[in-house]
Amino acid sequence: MQTVSTNRSHGGTQGVYSHASRETGTEMTFSVFVPDHAPGEKLPVVWYLSGLTCTHANVTEKGEFREACADLGLIFVAPDTSPRGEGVPDDGEGAYDFGLGAGFYVDATVDPWARAYRMRSYLERELPELIGAEFPADMTRQSIMGHSMGGHGALTLGLRDPERFRAVSAFAPIVSPINCPWGVKALSGYLGEDRVLWRQYDACALIEDGARVPDLLVDQGTADTFLDGQLKPELLRAACEKAGQPLTLRLQEGYDHSYYFISSFMADHLAWHAERLDA
Amino acid sequence: MQTVSTNRSHGGTQGVYSHASRETGTEMTFSVFVPDHAPGEKLPVVWYLSGLTCTHANVTEKGEFREACADLGLIFVAPDTSPRGEGVPDDGEGAYDFGLGAGFYVDATVDPWARAYRMRSYLERELPELIGAEFPADMTRQSIMGHSMGGHGALTLGLRDPERFRAVSAFAPIVSPINCPWGVKALSGYLGEDRVLWRQYDACALIEDGARVPDLLVDQGTADTFLDGQLKPELLRAACEKAGQPLTLRLQEGYDHSYYFISSFMADHLAWHAERLDA
Repeated sequence: MQTVSTNRSHGGTQGVYSHASRETGTEMTFSVFVPDHAPGEKLPVVWYLSGLTCTHANVTEKGEFREACADLGLIFVAPDTSPRGEGVPDDGEGAYDFGLGAGFYVDATVDPWARAYRMRSYLERELPELIGAEFPADMTRQSIMGHSMGGHGALTLGLRDPERFRAVSAFAPIVSPINCPWGVKALSGYLGEDRVLWRQYDACALIEDGARVPDLLVDQGTADTFLDGQLKPELLRAACEKAGQPLTLRLQEGYDHSYYFISSFMADHLAWHAERLDA
Repeated sequence: MQTVSTNRSHGGTQGVYSHASRETGTEMTFSVFVPDHAPGEKLPVVWYLSGLTCTHANVTEKGEFREACADLGLIFVAPDTSPRGEGVPDDGEGAYDFGLGAGFYVDATVDPWARAYRMRSYLERELPELIGAEFPADMTRQSIMGHSMGGHGALTLGLRDPERFRAVSAFAPIVSPINCPWGVKALSGYLGEDRVLWRQYDACALIEDGARVPDLLVDQGTADTFLDGQLKPELLRAACEKAGQPLTLRLQEGYDHSYYFISSFMADHLAWHAERLDA
C-alpha cells in the first residue's frame, strides 16, 4: 500500500492510499479517515460506496463526514467505483453509466469486462483485508452506506452479508437495477442476459428472496431528477413491506441528487451507524 | 443578477449567481447560502474571501459552513478572487499568484490592470449593494473572514471599515503582503513601486497606522508549507501587541493550508462571528 496524501482534519487524519489489486489487476485508490484515538485502540469501520462517475475524491472533499466521524470514533473508508488505468476496457463511447466509474459493485462474467470489473470481490474480500491489516480498524464492527449506484452497492453488500455489516443505509439509492435503465444496461453488460444471475445484485430481489437485516435507513430527495426514472424508492418500500423487512425511508423535501443533499444528512446517518456499531 | 444554480442543503438554499459588474467590467460569479427563515426576516451576513487560484466554488464545495450557518441563522457570501473572462489581462506566464485568481482585493492603479482589477471597490460597494437588494440580508450586521490571500482581504477590509464589519477572522492569512514574496509581487504589479500606497492593503501596516477592531481571530496550521515564507503570523502578533490590538492567534498543530484545515475550524469561526453579530 502506498500513501498518496495525508491531511490533518477535524482531529484526525484524512489519507488517500493506493495499492496493486489482485482482484482487478489494476492500481486501486481509496481514502480513509482515522480519528485520533488511544494507542492500541481499534475503531469501527464505516464503508461509503460512491455513485456513477465518482472516485474516492467526491465524498472525501464534499461529504462532510469528518466532524461526525471524529466525534463518534468512526473510521470512514471510501473506495473507487471501478477499476481504472491503461488496459481496463471502457464502453468506448464515453458513457458515464457503464465501464470506468460505473462498476456497479458486481463481479462481471462477460468479456471483456470479466477480467478487471471485480468490484464485488474487491470489496467483499480484498480491501477489507488491507484495511484490517493497515489501519487501527475493528473489523468485527463494520457498517456500510452509499449514494445512488453506491447506495445500490451498500444495500446489496449489506443484505448479502448481515454478519459483516451491523448497519446499512443509503442516500438516493438505485433500489432495483433490474427495474431501471441504468441497472438493465449495467447488469446485462457485465453479467449477460440471464436475469436470474442479476438478483444477487438487486436489493429488492434479495429481500424477495429472503435476505434480511435488522433495519435499513434510506434518505431520498424529492427534487432528485433521477427519482422517477431510475431510483424508484417505492419498489424498496413495497419489497420491505411485503417481506416484513424494517425500513426507514425519508423523503427529503426539495433536496436533489448532489453532495449538497448527501452532506446534509451525512451526520444523521453516521450517528445511526454509530449506535449500531456500539461506537 | 442571474441564478446559475440553486441546491437545497442543510435546511437552506445554496445558490450560485452572476451579474455584470460595473467595477470590473466583467461578468462576476459568487455564491450565497441562505438558511430557511421566517417571512420578512433578515439575517446577518458573513463574507468569505478566498485564496489564490480559487473561485467561489472551492469554499462552497469544501468549506463545510452550511450546517453552522443554518444553525446560527447566517447568510454566507463567497465572491470570486479576481475578474475573469475574455479581455481581462493576465500575467501572461500562467502564474498562479498574479492576475486571474489573484486579485489581492485591491483597486489596481497600474495599466493594464487598473481597468478590471477593482476587487476592493467591488467588495466595498458594488457586491454589498447587490446582496442587500437581492437577498434577505440585514446589512447592518456584517462580518468577514477569509483564507490565505482572502485572509489578507478579510483583515484589510475589516480593519479599514470596523463600522461595517462587526467581526473579522482569518484562516492562514497573508498578514503583511509588504513583507512576503506573494505580496510584493502583487502590490508592486497592481499599485507600482510607491510603498506608501501599499499600506492600506497590509493588515500589519494598517494596525501600525492606527486601525483598530474590537478583536481578531486567526487560525494557522503549523504544517502549512507557506507558514515561514509567506504567511508570517508572528508579524501580526507583534503589530497587535505593540498597538494594543486584541488578537487570538491559534497555532493548530499538524494542520496544513488546505480546505481540510479550513473546514476543521469553520464552525468555530462562524460561532465566534454569530456572537458578535447578535445572531
